Amino acid sequence: MYATVLHGPEDIRYEQVADPTILAPTDAIIQLSATCICGSDLWPYRGIATNDQPMHMGHEYCGVVIEVGREVRNIKPGQFVVGSFCLSDNTCPHCQFGFQSSCMQREFMTGAQAPYARVPLADGTLVATTEMPDTIMVQHMLAVSDVLGTGWYGAVAAGVREGGTVVVVGDGAVGLMAVMAAQQLGAERIIAMSRHESRQKLAREFGATDIVQERGEDGIARIMDLTDGIGVESVVEAVGMEQSMQQAMGACRPGGTIGYVGVPHGVSFDGQQLFFKQQRMLGGPAPVRRFLPDLMDRVLQGRIQPGKVFDLVLPLDQVAEGYRAMDERRAIKTMLTV
Amino acid sequence: MYATVLHGPEDIRYEQVADPTILAPTDAIIQLSATCICGSDLWPYRGIATNDQPMHMGHEYCGVVIEVGREVRNIKPGQFVVGSFCLSDNTCPHCQFGFQSSCMQREFMTGAQAPYARVPLADGTLVATTEMPDTIMVQHMLAVSDVLGTGWYGAVAAGVREGGTVVVVGDGAVGLMAVMAAQQLGAERIIAMSRHESRQKLAREFGATDIVQERGEDGIARIMDLTDGIGVESVVEAVGMEQSMQQAMGACRPGGTIGYVGVPHGVSFDGQQLFFKQQRMLGGPAPVRRFLPDLMDRVLQGRIQPGKVFDLVLPLDQVAEGYRAMDERRAIKTMLTV
Repeated sequence: MYATVLHGPEDIRYEQVADPTILAPTDAIIQLSATCICGSDLWPYRGIATNDQPMHMGHEYCGVVIEVGREVRNIKPGQFVVGSFCLSDNTCPHCQFGFQSSCMQREFMTGAQAPYARVPLADGTLVATTEMPDTIMVQHMLAVSDVLGTGWYGAVAAGVREGGTVVVVGDGAVGLMAVMAAQQLGAERIIAMSRHESRQKLAREFGATDIVQERGEDGIARIMDLTDGIGVESVVEAVGMEQSMQQAMGACRPGGTIGYVGVPHGVSFDGQQLFFKQQRMLGGPAPVRRFLPDLMDRVLQGRIQPGKVFDLVLPLDQVAEGYRAMDERRAIKTMLTV
Repeated sequence: MYATVLHGPEDIRYEQVADPTILAPTDAIIQLSATCICGSDLWPYRGIATNDQPMHMGHEYCGVVIEVGREVRNIKPGQFVVGSFCLSDNTCPHCQFGFQSSCMQREFMTGAQAPYARVPLADGTLVATTEMPDTIMVQHMLAVSDVLGTGWYGAVAAGVREGGTVVVVGDGAVGLMAVMAAQQLGAERIIAMSRHESRQKLAREFGATDIVQERGEDGIARIMDLTDGIGVESVVEAVGMEQSMQQAMGACRPGGTIGYVGVPHGVSFDGQQLFFKQQRMLGGPAPVRRFLPDLMDRVLQGRIQPGKVFDLVLPLDQVAEGYRAMDERRAIKTMLTV
């Protein structure tokens, strides 16, 4: 088959590779219904966190199971499934504690920007629907796999509660999904920090009650204005840079909580600053598997339409243009049809 | 009166100073029933975090109110009171949110290693008993003011729950009080990390179910042995050094929580390490005021005897010896009688 391979900075190729096959008895092979490009794919694309080897890209996926290994019990060929970018057995103590993204057997999904993909730990990782969803649902189910799941975890990690106040730092796809999550979780006030008009519009559509355009100290001052000098209970940090983290800490009230889901790059914390800020912090790769059944239900019931975060849809063989569009910020998130 | 003044590293003097007076209409003057030396007093004593000016030492106190400013409404002369080392109005949004140690008017108590002391923000800071407690209760009430309150906050910040598993890093007075707090909060397994026999004994008396003597990587390996390779849900870090913080992070399971109450000295965190550890963290100066009524009740009902943490009792005029004994680790915590 043809698939997406990164050969070096900005060198994305859609090229012939070996078809995926069952390697372990716990694997499944799926035929993707659609796939997409993640903000985190841009790190290696931009030459940060690269690999010497060509990388088989893609970790967001949904599709139909076509083959399973001999130890797979719950997942069957013909089922429509969604999985997380973190592969997990869903039975180890960390999984049972709700942190499947720290599964004792954790692997990270790769090679999903392709028509077919191998999914290790299929029983633990994949969640099947009872029926084949309508085609129109595919974009929303795809979004559940990572971008919504990560935004959702950000909001949960930030302690978002019914009637609470939330700031979302970052108007990328994950930030926008965190806005949707905060709205679904019942937050009363959701302040999205966004400088881009198209993203502000989506943020409002997803439930943002206020938009703050300013950044850095000005942004923090604006949040303080909006909250009578108190700050908010919950902050979702969805960028992973020093400035955005400082913004998150500046917006959060003492005793409030920061959920950080942007993988930190060049971020460090001074222990004493953290101590005196007195803010609860929880980050990490999202345990999407914990939320999958609930989020898939919300999609199938038509309560949320997270696929709206895809503002560019390209056929898979134009994947390189999809990367370029996201890198140049012409697109929030690119969906790839197969 | 005579009071305790630090003139420079290791230069503690019990010397004549001006009597405290009402400076603001929200002040109270108390006559101390007893006072004590805090582990954090040793930082300036050892020349770390010093001051150019002579420092009036002491921030743990209980005693009888002898005078109040004209705006003090709830506290009256003749009452026995306990207060926190953080002075707070108990009415601002941060106080109402339970984080009185980040009160918008926060000040830190000073000058309590003396027979009399001024307590600013008396209405917000002080909690009075309905009756004059027995003399035997004074040591326990004094411990509530900071050392128990801080250990208690550490356990609450670490999310200690009924039936939970806890590691306490640090066998100083605060660590020992965190063990007591974890026991009171219903933890099933309480692992105290302690190398000193007398402290291990107290830890067991306060509720520790296991003692780990090893430190660093060996200590972490021992915790992993004791928890089937999982780690614990809750860790209280009660030291504030790089090694102890790494120990805390090593003992905590993914999705677990670290409550850190040792003021960090020379501690920094790498953002990406923190992210992938996926541990909830909450630190800060303890909002003791939140817990005071409950803790004072537990003492008066005889359910806890936190004053047992004082293993050296000296008259106030021998305060310098009290500092030396703690500095040289001959004493866990020194109580000073007035």
